[in-house]
This record gives sequence, structure tokens and C-alpha cells, in this order.
Amino acid sequence: MRNDINRQWLLARRPDGIVREDHFRFIEAPIPAPAEGQVLVRNLLLSCDPHQRLLMSQDTVVPMMPLGEVVGAVGIGQVVESRRSDYRPGELVAGYFGWQDYVATDGTEWVPMHKLSPGLQPNLALSLFGITGLTAYFGVLDVGQVKAGDMFVVSGAAGATGSIAGQIAKLKGCKVIGTTGGRAKCDWLTNELGFDGVIDYRAENIGARLSALCPDGIDVFFDNVGGTVLNEALARLSLNGRVVLCGAISSYNDTTLPAGPSNYFQLVLKRGRMEGFMVLDYARRFPEAIGTLASWHAEGKLKQKEDVAIGLENAPRTFARLFTGDKLGKQLLTIADPPLARVD
Amino acid sequence: MRNDINRQWLLARRPDGIVREDHFRFIEAPIPAPAEGQVLVRNLLLSCDPHQRLLMSQDTVVPMMPLGEVVGAVGIGQVVESRRSDYRPGELVAGYFGWQDYVATDGTEWVPMHKLSPGLQPNLALSLFGITGLTAYFGVLDVGQVKAGDMFVVSGAAGATGSIAGQIAKLKGCKVIGTTGGRAKCDWLTNELGFDGVIDYRAENIGARLSALCPDGIDVFFDNVGGTVLNEALARLSLNGRVVLCGAISSYNDTTLPAGPSNYFQLVLKRGRMEGFMVLDYARRFPEAIGTLASWHAEGKLKQKEDVAIGLENAPRTFARLFTGDKLGKQLLTIADPPLARVD
Repeated sequence: MRNDINRQWLLARRPDGIVREDHFRFIEAPIPAPAEGQVLVRNLLLSCDPHQRLLMSQDTVVPMMPLGEVVGAVGIGQVVESRRSDYRPGELVAGYFGWQDYVATDGTEWVPMHKLSPGLQPNLALSLFGITGLTAYFGVLDVGQVKAGDMFVVSGAAGATGSIAGQIAKLKGCKVIGTTGGRAKCDWLTNELGFDGVIDYRAENIGARLSALCPDGIDVFFDNVGGTVLNEALARLSLNGRVVLCGAISSYNDTTLPAGPSNYFQLVLKRGRMEGFMVLDYARRFPEAIGTLASWHAEGKLKQKEDVAIGLENAPRTFARLFTGDKLGKQLLTIADPPLARVD
Repeated sequence: MRNDINRQWLLARRPDGIVREDHFRFIEAPIPAPAEGQVLVRNLLLSCDPHQRLLMSQDTVVPMMPLGEVVGAVGIGQVVESRRSDYRPGELVAGYFGWQDYVATDGTEWVPMHKLSPGLQPNLALSLFGITGLTAYFGVLDVGQVKAGDMFVVSGAAGATGSIAGQIAKLKGCKVIGTTGGRAKCDWLTNELGFDGVIDYRAENIGARLSALCPDGIDVFFDNVGGTVLNEALARLSLNGRVVLCGAISSYNDTTLPAGPSNYFQLVLKRGRMEGFMVLDYARRFPEAIGTLASWHAEGKLKQKEDVAIGLENAPRTFARLFTGDKLGKQLLTIADPPLARVD
């Protein structure tokens, strides 16, 4: 890898189905010069998030990614040159840096740039203490309003957010059931993370298993998946049950909108609530959340797994792993070592 | 009509589609004798409520109506004989009295028996000051959390609950749009009830009209209908928008569950909430609500229409009018005059 070029993955066309390399174009560009008010960041580690897939083909809370431009992604980088008085070379920063080696930015993208806390490992900054963990935290506690004794079900339970969400619910005294695909993931959830029960959606009937594991209904359903599992969970909602809508990864690769949950009317019969949220809306409370997550993590009460791929050239195929069920926990892509000594 | 028999409509089989007479059986039975702790009520006026249709073929918050038994219905009656110290002959009562002339009851059915306020007209007790008006009140104010300036859309706007819901939202300073079927209903909503806009779902494209009438999105959608209008409203939800799930009358006659709202994921993108409720959960606050509704009504700020059919023999065909779009406002069925002088 040369240090005088900026490799970039551009979005070449709107993906149909799971992303393939030919949806993108891999180019070499000059390293940009930061303008006044900008910093030049060397990208080190990229986060793979399902929401990126939506932005490749549609508007969400932000406009979709423009064709011909660098694929958007949250990452951790190191400041190598600064034309801002509040950033110094050597500092590690998180931001919306994209699939590229270098970025010159003022940090005002929709995921705002910020410095990593002193000593914080970049991988943890993108997983437990990043969007992933914060989404689980606010989804379970604020949207889900879990309380001790609740029956809590999470879909995509072995995923980055799902695995944290389930553990937070356990810490709050819930009984926790997770749905995931494959025996290995099921075993991880029960043996390592302390889930009370698991459902392997590839091998088992979700509805029948939910009925067996949740005979009194589901108090909180934390949904990362959508589709069948959402519908089956709605059918078994308990009185005043809550559905926390976090994601719908089962449909992100569809080119047409899938059918909605036909059991939504259970929300009336059970006086339930289905609510979506965006973690960035909670930005002012991130310090509180990170403090709590850090305590739990330090006490060994919150475990997490990362699946770290290597090399910017592998960005498309690494990103595709979000949808194939091949990874466990948080999918990351490491693309460089820090060029400078870390400055905290 | 003889006064020594008790005519009853029994549920003969589970309806498929809109109810027909052959789903029921019309019989003559002896007038029951009240047991200790019961009153004998002469049924005077019956309420037609969409929820009854659900209970004819499925469990909801209460078990479905048993085959071979009297069709369940809320009604107003007069106590003609009492074996309870707290009820006297001549008093008007509301309760779950069913499609029959007489009922002997202790009043503990799922819609509990209670006396009408002194002087209150029976028709108002079943419409504006009954389940209908109370559902609108708590749905708009508590579930919908409307505030001045909100864009409020209600489906089934010319119906019993919808017409009250829209007027309450207007009273709270919302801009109010209603969807209904047919020009006459549209005119009633705009000319008589002061709605800001209407959509005739039979003649117009709901989505296109919602876009035109709600260019900044929908803050609160009060849904009585389900199906297309729910899905189109979700597509246009504004940030932190609320969907108040009150009913889904478009599907009550279906024998299979219709597709759910494919746009439900807008709840994530717009950080929205979709919530169901049952008005009986608010029973402790009925006095407050009725007081407020009565003030608005007395001041001429809240109008309502009733469609009153006559004769117990016409119960099935009157009930069917809930689903054919032939009625305006609250559907009632009057079946007798009070046999005794009213005692308040």
C-alpha cells in the first residue's frame, strides 16, 4: 500500500440485492489537501452498518449516497494534518469518513466528527461505545422501557446491536430470548451471553418457538430484522407490549417493499406500541450512556464480539457479510495502522 | 310487539364477509326472571359498533361470541324489575345487553352496567358520551398527544368516532383532514364540521391527495380504517409523527388477515410511534372526559349525527350498514319506548 495515493470506493450504481463488487468502482485519487477549518484524516478502521445499504438506494433520514461519490461509512481515523485549532495531528477521531484511505473534512457530516476518549480502543469506539452500543442502550431503556420481569425478545440477537440489547435487558432483570441463524450463534448467545432462550430461524418455526418460550406473551420485542419474526412477535404481544423498531435487515436488499406486518392490529387488541428511533437524536445523552456501558463492560457484565476483516480492497465483500449471516457481532474492516503516535 | 316474550337474535354461525340475516337466528324466548343481585332490563336502544363484527368470528380483548347465544351489543335499557338495592325500576342504564328485548343481568359484563346521568338522552349516551365519543377523546388527546398546529388526519372521518375525533383535534388547534367515501360525507365534514380538507377515497387517489393536503407531512394519523389509507399515511408521517390505531374497519369482514402496512419502517426513519388503545382502560377518567365533551357540546362546538334505524327485527341489516358506507355518524337501532316513567 502506498502512502501517496488515496484509494476510494465509489458508488457506481444502485445495488439490486446484496452488494457485489460491480456495484462499486475502486479508484486511486490524490490525497486531498485540507482547507482552512478542515483536518486531514487517515482512515484506520471502518464500521459496517446495515443502514449504509439503505442509503445506497434510497433516502432515509439523510439523502441517499450520490452515484459516483465515495461510499459513506462511519470510521475511526487519525488526524495527520489539521487546519483547525481544536484538532492536533496524532489524535484519533470518529466520523463519517467513507470507504477511502484519506478524507479532508470539517467534521460536520450527519454523523458528526468527534475525538475518541483517551485510551479508548478504536474497535470499541465503533462497537460497544459507538452507534451500535448506543442504539442498543437507548432502544432497550428509553424506547423499550424495560423493567425487571419483562419477557424481552430480540431479533438478530447475535448481531452487533442485538447482542448488546439482549445483555442490557438481562442486566435490567428481563427474561431474554434471541432469534438468530445457525447453531453456533445460538450457542454463543446462551453459553456466553446468558440468554434464557434462543430460536434458530433457519431450523425452527419462529411462531411455534415463540409460543413455547413466551407462554405469557412478549413484553418488549426489539426488532432488527422485520418480516416474519416481527409479524410473529406482534401476534404474541402481551398487554401494553412494546415493539422497538431498530432495523429491518431482512428487507434491505429487496428492490420492492415487502409486505408489512399483517398482525399489526394486535397493537390495538393489546394496547401496544410500536416505535422507531434514531440514536443520533439522543446525542446529548451519549456521555451518560457511554459511562454506564463502560461500567458494565469493566465489570465483565457486557460482552461483545467483533469480526474484523482486513484491507480497504475488501470493503464490498466485507460489507456483504452483514446480510449473509456469516459474521458474529460487529463487522469491522481495518484498513491501516496509525501513521503517527497516538495523541490523547 | 308483545310484551310477554323476549325476542332474541342468536349467532347461528361465524360470518364470512359482511353479516347477513342467515348468520343469525331470530327466536322468541320467555322473559327471564332476575335472580338475586340481578336486574331485569327492557332494552330500548342498541349501539352498532364495528368491534362486534370482530367478536362474531374471533377473540379480541374478550372471547368471541359463543355460537347459539344472543349477539353481544352495548345498549340502553330501562330497569323494569330490580333485585339489587342500588337499582330501581324506571332507571335508565347502559350495559352489554345484546340483541334482545329483555336481559336479566348483574351488570358485570366486560362493558360494565351503569346508570345514565340524570336527563341524559339515550342516543347521546351511546354516541357522544358513550364509547364512541370517549374513544375519540382519549385517542386524540392521550394517545395522539395533539398540539396546536399539528397536521391531523383521520380516516373514516364521517363515522361515529372519526367525526368526533376530527372536531376535537380542531378544537385543539390542529389542521384537520378527513378521509371518507362519497361527496355527501365530504361536504358534511367541510361545511358542517369545519374540517380543513377531505379526501373521497372512492373518487380520489389517497396518496396523491394526502401529499397535496399535507405537504409537510402528517403529525397525527387517527386510523379507523386500516389498509391503504394507513399505509399511505405512514409514508407521509412527519418527524416524531404518531399513528393512533383505533380500528381497521376495512378488514373486519375479511376471512384472512390482509397484508400489513408495508410502509411501517417509516416509523424508524421518522422516529414515529404507532399505538393501539382500548377506551375501557381509561374508565377512571370517563367523568373528566364526559365533562369536557358535554361543555363543548353545550357550546355548540361539537356536532354529531346519528343514523337511527327502528326495530329489533332489523338488527342484522342495520349492523351491516357499518360496513357498506350507507350511514353517516353513529349507527343506532331503537327497539322500544320506555315502558315505565323515567326515574333519574
